[in-house]
Amino acid sequence: MSGHLRIVMAQINLLVGDVDGNAERMRAAVAEARDRLKGHVVVFPELALIGYPPEDLLLRPEVGRRVARALQHMEKGARGIDVVVGHPLAADGRLYNAVSWLRDGRTIAVYRKCELPNYSVFDEQRYFLAGADACVVEVHGVRLGLTICEDIWTPGPVAAARDAGAVAIVNINASPYHTGKWREREEIARLRVRETGCSLVYANLVGGQDELVFDGSSFAMDRKGRILVQAPAFREGLHAVDLDTSGEVQVGTRASLPATDEGIYEALVLGVRDYVRKNGFQGVLIGLSGGIDSALTLALAVDALGVDAVRAVMMPSPYTSEISLAGARAEAVRLGINYRVIPIHGLFDSFITVLSGEFEGAPAGITGENLQARIRGVLLMAISNESGRLVLTTGNKSEMAVGYATLYGDMAGGFAIIKDVSKTQVYQLAEYVNRRASERGEAIVIPGEVIRRPPSAELAPGQKDSDSLPPYEVLDPIIEAHVERNLSIEEMITAGMDAPTVERVVGMIRRNEYKRRQAPPGVRITRRAFGRDWRYPITSGYSSR
Amino acid sequence: MSGHLRIVMAQINLLVGDVDGNAERMRAAVAEARDRLKGHVVVFPELALIGYPPEDLLLRPEVGRRVARALQHMEKGARGIDVVVGHPLAADGRLYNAVSWLRDGRTIAVYRKCELPNYSVFDEQRYFLAGADACVVEVHGVRLGLTICEDIWTPGPVAAARDAGAVAIVNINASPYHTGKWREREEIARLRVRETGCSLVYANLVGGQDELVFDGSSFAMDRKGRILVQAPAFREGLHAVDLDTSGEVQVGTRASLPATDEGIYEALVLGVRDYVRKNGFQGVLIGLSGGIDSALTLALAVDALGVDAVRAVMMPSPYTSEISLAGARAEAVRLGINYRVIPIHGLFDSFITVLSGEFEGAPAGITGENLQARIRGVLLMAISNESGRLVLTTGNKSEMAVGYATLYGDMAGGFAIIKDVSKTQVYQLAEYVNRRASERGEAIVIPGEVIRRPPSAELAPGQKDSDSLPPYEVLDPIIEAHVERNLSIEEMITAGMDAPTVERVVGMIRRNEYKRRQAPPGVRITRRAFGRDWRYPITSGYSSR
Repeated sequence: MSGHLRIVMAQINLLVGDVDGNAERMRAAVAEARDRLKGHVVVFPELALIGYPPEDLLLRPEVGRRVARALQHMEKGARGIDVVVGHPLAADGRLYNAVSWLRDGRTIAVYRKCELPNYSVFDEQRYFLAGADACVVEVHGVRLGLTICEDIWTPGPVAAARDAGAVAIVNINASPYHTGKWREREEIARLRVRETGCSLVYANLVGGQDELVFDGSSFAMDRKGRILVQAPAFREGLHAVDLDTSGEVQVGTRASLPATDEGIYEALVLGVRDYVRKNGFQGVLIGLSGGIDSALTLALAVDALGVDAVRAVMMPSPYTSEISLAGARAEAVRLGINYRVIPIHGLFDSFITVLSGEFEGAPAGITGENLQARIRGVLLMAISNESGRLVLTTGNKSEMAVGYATLYGDMAGGFAIIKDVSKTQVYQLAEYVNRRASERGEAIVIPGEVIRRPPSAELAPGQKDSDSLPPYEVLDPIIEAHVERNLSIEEMITAGMDAPTVERVVGMIRRNEYKRRQAPPGVRITRRAFGRDWRYPITSGYSSR
Repeated sequence: MSGHLRIVMAQINLLVGDVDGNAERMRAAVAEARDRLKGHVVVFPELALIGYPPEDLLLRPEVGRRVARALQHMEKGARGIDVVVGHPLAADGRLYNAVSWLRDGRTIAVYRKCELPNYSVFDEQRYFLAGADACVVEVHGVRLGLTICEDIWTPGPVAAARDAGAVAIVNINASPYHTGKWREREEIARLRVRETGCSLVYANLVGGQDELVFDGSSFAMDRKGRILVQAPAFREGLHAVDLDTSGEVQVGTRASLPATDEGIYEALVLGVRDYVRKNGFQGVLIGLSGGIDSALTLALAVDALGVDAVRAVMMPSPYTSEISLAGARAEAVRLGINYRVIPIHGLFDSFITVLSGEFEGAPAGITGENLQARIRGVLLMAISNESGRLVLTTGNKSEMAVGYATLYGDMAGGFAIIKDVSKTQVYQLAEYVNRRASERGEAIVIPGEVIRRPPSAELAPGQKDSDSLPPYEVLDPIIEAHVERNLSIEEMITAGMDAPTVERVVGMIRRNEYKRRQAPPGVRITRRAFGRDWRYPITSGYSSR
């Protein structure tokens, strides 16, 4: 041990609502932090006892009682090491987002979060009242200021802790991943360090919870604003931070964080793995189309769950090309998954016959196209019902934005891994998958043909995505600007985008709210996904100009 | 005119996001309030210019610009009458929920809402900063205190207005309906009146917006706590309130509010009518089963939209009984709607054949049951695609709670009118429909057989709901206690409910979150619906004991 005081950041994966199970996981971490890592303090993430975000579970009085009981047990177990644990706190008929400092079988301090985020994916003011007071605890002569997550994103709480005598800040987090988040955290931490002269220990949760992925990536920053300890992203682990007698952070283990594509990929892998496992599914089922979206979804699923847990079905219609059949088969064989082909020609004809009495003439284009997608949805769900496997949908963010998907058809399924990944990023991730395989000396996973072919839903003869949509290199920047950066049409046109195209795309985004409202959840990887952070009315007279 | 000062409550139906259209509707109301009703002041609902709730439209800067422009136009038009208009207000880089008092082409006062609800269906702290100051405006010597909705649900803002000299309170609202809400509003208004000695004018929005129905029911209360003016529920209209020189409310027109069943029924009618019309659909399509849920849904749709706008399809499977066929046909004929029968036997057999290679042996019970429901969903959606009609689903709250419904099957559709109506209430509303018809001297609408028969999904031979669920007279009180009154299992058992049944039902509610997440929106009629006011994680380790 190089320092005077050792703080162990417990970057662990918890389960929302499972208070007793979480307490059990934390007890194991306490023992390891004390016995193996020789820590003086072990620090758990924000609201660790109940998991994050607990949402309306917080409104149930019995959940509060269970948390209080688990906290008492943890208090008793805090021997030989200080334990810093996040939990909801009921007091005076109100609820607080709190952290308790446990020592020698007692609670020696409680801090209540002062800054409650109520924007983006966060609804903390729905549940909590804000605290007002700083909290500083002395350990081996080092005075540590306690803060929770959002508290460091404004100057107030850290300054208050410094004013109360803190020389180092302990910040416990449930901070979800999106691309670029690591830089944002580092910059905000450096601001606080520079403002106050306190070093900073940033301990984050890891794991997937519905649409959010918490990436871990815990770190410690010295008073010069340098990250001297860096925990890996997307992995559980206990990570020691050593402070000297002045509370300054000492050099420790520095994991490297992944590059952008790898980071997104790992977030998606963790997101789907935790959704599947935490919900108790034994495996998943994917409808392959021979296109790049389902090809990437399959690769992700196999990485997340293993070959044996993944099954795929190809359901060709009269419009399915040979390229599609060959591409799907090649990847399935390469990965060694259970793979079946079920043609839908006969079912399609049967529906057309049954419906012939309802329509005047042949069904319109969209009716026949949706019919194929929905027959596939019915088949997948039947196999899912029979096998207990979760159906993974394969739609990307570009499609979700403009509604280029069939409700109850290709949108039928329990989890949509890549729903926040634009088509442009889908290509980048497919290349990443193949590059990684090549670097390992393995055959590529996604056939080159699947990547190079023009995108097509193959629901009509010779159909291309570009028949209905602007090219993705035009579409995706508009979606990114409007959805993630909140630009208006006027601003996008001023930035040089084509006016009629921008208006058309924004109109499509607006009109397809009803589809997104019935879409399965999927992993959030951007600043604004179509999920908790996108709350638009379906019924809306808002027109964009 | 019996009084000294006439305030006109503009109980009008607006469209969220349609700033220019709402301004147009309001200009017409201003002219009518001034010219026909000889009002001195016309009062519009909360956030009237943008509609309620505007949700994340508020985050778009261009929406703020449009509101500011429309407000300027309204200001110019405020001649010969004072205009009190609710709108979002951008100031100092923050947003406020505000109301402006317009007189003689100028804005003479602006009030910012002090109490921002951030619970139940409300997320106002996501968007707005709270105001802090009272606002009193004098009209013909009467000093009126301005407040917005939630402001009267705590003592502070009304007391502040009184302290600032108000003798009467004008409260503008966007208050959604649920059963019992009228009494709650009256009681809270009486509390404020008694505390402050101010009379109260309560002006509310009317109309459906996605899952919410605003019921209007505007009223005015004198200083003795008596409602002396009562506007009708669920109807647009301008309603005059006369005050004497002391600001006391004078006796005016008192509409009677509907009894419970009629109130729920009217809320459902308005909710589906506005969803269909505001979203531009020409008509709706309903799959009839011969059961009471689809029978009630059909009656509601015809009342809301008229006979010509409603089409229904009956899709019998091998398990459909003669009672079902006869019951569905009888109601369709009675109402005179377009009605077709499309048997699904052949499609069912085709799927079983195609799937035979995927299963070992015959498909399990649930697979075959879901298959029938999903074939029906595909057929309905094909007719919807071809005709442009919105599919209405027919599931009730009891089914939504315990997951007794098929995703992408009977849950496929754009709007679920009765999703917040328990099975017990479905029976009550069916009786109401028939009673009303009898009182009008018409034949009953829903055949007695459909009401009396034991509930069955008819997806397997001889199937009854009671094979899978507790009887509804046991199930519904548990759902009501747990969902609407937030009782824990312990509390329900203490209240005398059967312990194993309570545990079973609460477990079913918890496990079916994933289905509800992909359900269409529907009308909220209770204190807590499965919608904006029910935000539970899908992934959850919470077990109820």
